[in-house]
Amino acid sequence: MPTLTEDSETNTNVAAPTGNLEITVSRAELLRELTAAQSVVERKTTIPILSNFLFEASNEGETGRLTITATDLDQSLRTSCAAKVKKAGACTIPARKLYDYIRLLPEGEISIKLMDNHWVQIRAGRSNTKMVGMARANFPQVAEFPASGAYTLSVASLKTMVSKTIFAISNEESRYTLNGALLVLKAESMAMVATDGHRLAHVEKLGETLEGISGEKKTLIPRKALSELSSLLNSTDAETMQFADDDSTLFFKMGGRVLTSRKLTGQFPNYEAVLPRDNNKFVIVRSEDLMSAIQRVAQFADERSGAIKIRLEQNELRLSSSSTDSGESEDTIETPYNYDPLVVGFNSQYLIDFLKAIGNTGEVRLEFKDAQSAGQMRPEDGNEDVKYRYILMPMRI
Amino acid sequence: MPTLTEDSETNTNVAAPTGNLEITVSRAELLRELTAAQSVVERKTTIPILSNFLFEASNEGETGRLTITATDLDQSLRTSCAAKVKKAGACTIPARKLYDYIRLLPEGEISIKLMDNHWVQIRAGRSNTKMVGMARANFPQVAEFPASGAYTLSVASLKTMVSKTIFAISNEESRYTLNGALLVLKAESMAMVATDGHRLAHVEKLGETLEGISGEKKTLIPRKALSELSSLLNSTDAETMQFADDDSTLFFKMGGRVLTSRKLTGQFPNYEAVLPRDNNKFVIVRSEDLMSAIQRVAQFADERSGAIKIRLEQNELRLSSSSTDSGESEDTIETPYNYDPLVVGFNSQYLIDFLKAIGNTGEVRLEFKDAQSAGQMRPEDGNEDVKYRYILMPMRI
Repeated sequence: MPTLTEDSETNTNVAAPTGNLEITVSRAELLRELTAAQSVVERKTTIPILSNFLFEASNEGETGRLTITATDLDQSLRTSCAAKVKKAGACTIPARKLYDYIRLLPEGEISIKLMDNHWVQIRAGRSNTKMVGMARANFPQVAEFPASGAYTLSVASLKTMVSKTIFAISNEESRYTLNGALLVLKAESMAMVATDGHRLAHVEKLGETLEGISGEKKTLIPRKALSELSSLLNSTDAETMQFADDDSTLFFKMGGRVLTSRKLTGQFPNYEAVLPRDNNKFVIVRSEDLMSAIQRVAQFADERSGAIKIRLEQNELRLSSSSTDSGESEDTIETPYNYDPLVVGFNSQYLIDFLKAIGNTGEVRLEFKDAQSAGQMRPEDGNEDVKYRYILMPMRI
Repeated sequence: MPTLTEDSETNTNVAAPTGNLEITVSRAELLRELTAAQSVVERKTTIPILSNFLFEASNEGETGRLTITATDLDQSLRTSCAAKVKKAGACTIPARKLYDYIRLLPEGEISIKLMDNHWVQIRAGRSNTKMVGMARANFPQVAEFPASGAYTLSVASLKTMVSKTIFAISNEESRYTLNGALLVLKAESMAMVATDGHRLAHVEKLGETLEGISGEKKTLIPRKALSELSSLLNSTDAETMQFADDDSTLFFKMGGRVLTSRKLTGQFPNYEAVLPRDNNKFVIVRSEDLMSAIQRVAQFADERSGAIKIRLEQNELRLSSSSTDSGESEDTIETPYNYDPLVVGFNSQYLIDFLKAIGNTGEVRLEFKDAQSAGQMRPEDGNEDVKYRYILMPMRI
């Protein structure tokens, strides 16, 4: 953390010294970092300071640096950009207002200056604004990235894992340990699992090299953190990122940005027990064909359950639905199938979620045992390094 | 209206004979017409039949024709497309369900067949669906386009008029006669006016040739009809359209589509009295400059009133705002101004609405008298044929 002890004459009796921050910064760079940080800011907080950014300016480096922090107490994001620092110091600024205002400014230099009573002046070209900030001392302490014990992970691999599992996380707040995905790190592979009790997404990436791992390290990552992580991974050019944790906090570091998240405690279910072993009946269909057939038929499914029926018979997959309100619908896809006929019901939205997760391209393999057992879906893409499987509990229909 | 008297054996005791409609139609053509018609369908109606389309198939023309009608009782849209008619007849089909289903079907021929109990079968390729319709006899009567007395209007001119006035229509349901725009037709011009009592948009197009008009014809068009009209005007290739009215109904005919709307009754305000005559102080600024300055400053306006202050002084236009919650902001634009200084307050959203209506391009002229009088805005585009003016009441600030 930058030293913030200079110029603290206006705030001599607060816990953390602040100084009269005075900087100029490029609008493009500031906006880029605010864009990354603003999604962490709580929109409807009852704690006013949490709707502010913390700005800290220091004379680090040749010119200087502005560090921006946002937190909602569950998670925090700290990022920074180059700045000409006339006076080092710190202040807090209403996050949403600032972000909207900076977006509306034309390209150029922006000067930011802390005034009396926590007001902050923003000047750019012929625009001049003063925003009502709050005392820096009120801003919560944000955990620092640990000095040691971090693991280096591939950005591309982690991005894949998150996008292929995040949708299967439970929305039920009460199912506490299902409100996140489990990251499983081993010396030569990484995996992620998410489930809501009705379906489970499991993705494993082989051929990774994870230094410092012996045996396996399992970490439960809350959904909100995964979603932030996903946008950070999508906006970084770096090939690797750092992951660390301590007793209470997870840390993700990409380039100059650090995301922290409070850990979820509790026991993730024993997912290995539900992975089907003997789903010997299968069909392979084009993802696009299956998607559009499901979407059509799902319109006539019972609105509450979304249940549709899959019937497999001699070289044909037949989807059907009916509801007393709207009518009935069926769609068939021709595809090789020579096992015993089978009829099984599934939540249509769960099927759609998986097809979206594989980008609705290529072929997909559907594997079944019988009408009472979980079905499994897998992409038929011949990618040996990424093992992706999706397990769905059947519905009575 | 097509004759619908054949094949009425399944509905012998209903008022309007229906017949066992059975047709095939191209998915692209059907979807195009459903897209036009579906916006008229009421989403949250308590009268179930209004959430249905009326389909009427007749053997008109070489092959046959499908006519599609939608109504919410206030307005109706009737449109049609070519169809292979195996059996002429009529049926009603749930509008939203049908539209969503047809959208999800691949390109190709669709067959539609009326079954027993008002069920309708939709088949396409390997898809087969039955929807629960309602008796054709329940569908309300829709007014027919008058056989005579229609005026021919330019599509381009009418499109301009609607887009330049519709936003100024009052949102207050209670201000009944302000819930529409006034169309003023003369032999050689057309004009449209809308106001909500706080601002007024007036656009006049000269150099039109309107046959059958003597003196002037004033018609109040409800907002909902203007909004439908606007999308119909935007999706037609025709250069002219037909406008007609009778005691209770307005009719707009474009290509094969007829939009009807119930008339608004009551007296539109005497708008000519509020058009400023002696706003002699003016500035000319680039629309984009003014728009971005207003948007920045408006962020710090009082949230309820949206009021910002315009100050004109020696070659400068200064916008400013302040609110106790968020702070204060000002922006200046350099521009020739040599009259007495002036300070006047306006609703920032009203200013923005006008700049959007002129496409936020070119220059705009702001004309004032004093802080108590209405201001006027006009595009400085040198278009002599289109006279567009926008009048705003000042706000105390």
